[in-house]
Amino acid sequence: MSLLVIGSVALDSVETPFGRREAVLGGSATYFSTAASYFGPVRLVAVVGEDFPDEHARFLRERGVELDGLARRPGRTFRWKGRYEYDLNVAHTLETHLNVFADFRPEVPAAWREPDHLFLGNIDPELQDAVLDQVRRPRLVAADTMNFWIASKREALLRTLRRVDLLFVNDAEARQLAGESNVVLAARAILGMGPRAVVVKRGEHGALYFSGEETFAASAFPLASVFDPTGAGDSFAGGFMGYLARNGRHDPPVMRRAIAVGSVLASFVVEQFSLDRLRTLTAGEIRGRYAELRRLTHFDDLEPELLG
Amino acid sequence: MSLLVIGSVALDSVETPFGRREAVLGGSATYFSTAASYFGPVRLVAVVGEDFPDEHARFLRERGVELDGLARRPGRTFRWKGRYEYDLNVAHTLETHLNVFADFRPEVPAAWREPDHLFLGNIDPELQDAVLDQVRRPRLVAADTMNFWIASKREALLRTLRRVDLLFVNDAEARQLAGESNVVLAARAILGMGPRAVVVKRGEHGALYFSGEETFAASAFPLASVFDPTGAGDSFAGGFMGYLARNGRHDPPVMRRAIAVGSVLASFVVEQFSLDRLRTLTAGEIRGRYAELRRLTHFDDLEPELLG
Repeated sequence: MSLLVIGSVALDSVETPFGRREAVLGGSATYFSTAASYFGPVRLVAVVGEDFPDEHARFLRERGVELDGLARRPGRTFRWKGRYEYDLNVAHTLETHLNVFADFRPEVPAAWREPDHLFLGNIDPELQDAVLDQVRRPRLVAADTMNFWIASKREALLRTLRRVDLLFVNDAEARQLAGESNVVLAARAILGMGPRAVVVKRGEHGALYFSGEETFAASAFPLASVFDPTGAGDSFAGGFMGYLARNGRHDPPVMRRAIAVGSVLASFVVEQFSLDRLRTLTAGEIRGRYAELRRLTHFDDLEPELLG
Repeated sequence: MSLLVIGSVALDSVETPFGRREAVLGGSATYFSTAASYFGPVRLVAVVGEDFPDEHARFLRERGVELDGLARRPGRTFRWKGRYEYDLNVAHTLETHLNVFADFRPEVPAAWREPDHLFLGNIDPELQDAVLDQVRRPRLVAADTMNFWIASKREALLRTLRRVDLLFVNDAEARQLAGESNVVLAARAILGMGPRAVVVKRGEHGALYFSGEETFAASAFPLASVFDPTGAGDSFAGGFMGYLARNGRHDPPVMRRAIAVGSVLASFVVEQFSLDRLRTLTAGEIRGRYAELRRLTHFDDLEPELLG
């Protein structure tokens, strides 16, 4: 099963209450593809500048991320600078330099144009649409978006959504997109816009999954040490899609396991700066934490005779 | 098994995006005892004024709430006025008139001084302490508190906590009490203050339970219609304690079921104004939603061969 991702590769400068890092590996497609790589090969379409360190490309390749679609253009790589304060749930963007990413026109290599699974990372919905024009209809198309596109490119986003099977949004984005404060109603409204499934990411509170009559409420793994929340949502999507692509089935129990896998990958990523935790993370650790998440959230049937 | 609760009985005026109600039945001990009453009798110690309508006392009595400890004093009942806006998670207090509640000195009736289970609602920790002096040590003492007491009566609260088995707090209160932004670490710090268990309530995001090595992460029931969030936390505690008192055991699987029961009761209460939903709620509906919550949160083991 092939998995293709289009998105950003960046150099991030991050400050948290626990320290700071300058120009470390970042970007939505980077987190996504590294997390997904635990389940099989991932094909990455993105752009970097001349300053992009070879060691990062080497790291991705070693993890099984195929880089034939990673264009290197004259100029500097996309750079983001952000700070997290006491409440790690809120990222404060200090600087954004799009650099070569400003002119990013994703081009899917000819050999990659029949992907089984496609993830459209958080980029301009017009570019997401253009990617869909380049590929034969995949078995599953998932997309991410953000408040900026919802507000400034609503029509284009709605066009893209009609071609998307599954949308990842956080709860604020779901509310904004649907114009509805209740998350359940917002998700139902989004299901009316095209996608047949919506995953509402709620950070440390977990995620909700909606598709037809199916609802799944997932808790996040409770973490005693959160070091750098950057990339958690993209790692969630990466674990989710990597697992789905490897599994091949999309029935409700598989979708539920995919969400749990996504939560587990996200829970590891935030334990260290940048993608550092994924440099040492093993399949055994993923299996172990998945089992622990099941144990942490399990409760038994109610004794019916105790009521009334 | 006997269950005793000390707390407030109030007349609330509430405004939400969906309407408003004037001087309806409210108060922490009211929500608690009504929710707990589905599992057996509840003994209520509180105070009301001369204006407290007989119909409210009748309603509580019909639900199995014993009112020998409900003092009626000259003056007016405790009144709270609040508004919820678009984001129903945030209550804005418009007016608080303590009235007879200002001089509340809880007095446990002589026949009630050997409770098996005791819930100290969110009142001055000095009064919580005074209640503990009036009773023979119960099998389980649970307490609630709030930001106001954490800030203004910290020493008294810490004294009370040393006599409490289980503390209910929301995540902001847990952080404030422990001086620690990470909720898991905050809960562990609170376990060092006396309680052997902490329930961190997270509203629509569910709850976390910590006790020794045991951690349980519970999702809330995803609701399409939230009408009035008032009393959700107290109803959660009421369902939790009512179930525990009826069950009699306190082992980890029972505590997990208690949290799920609390979530279910809270999910019903917010569907209508005041306690109105509990006027018609049946044991069958509670059983049904509990089963639905299990179904909504279940996921299977991971296929180990799909990784790596």
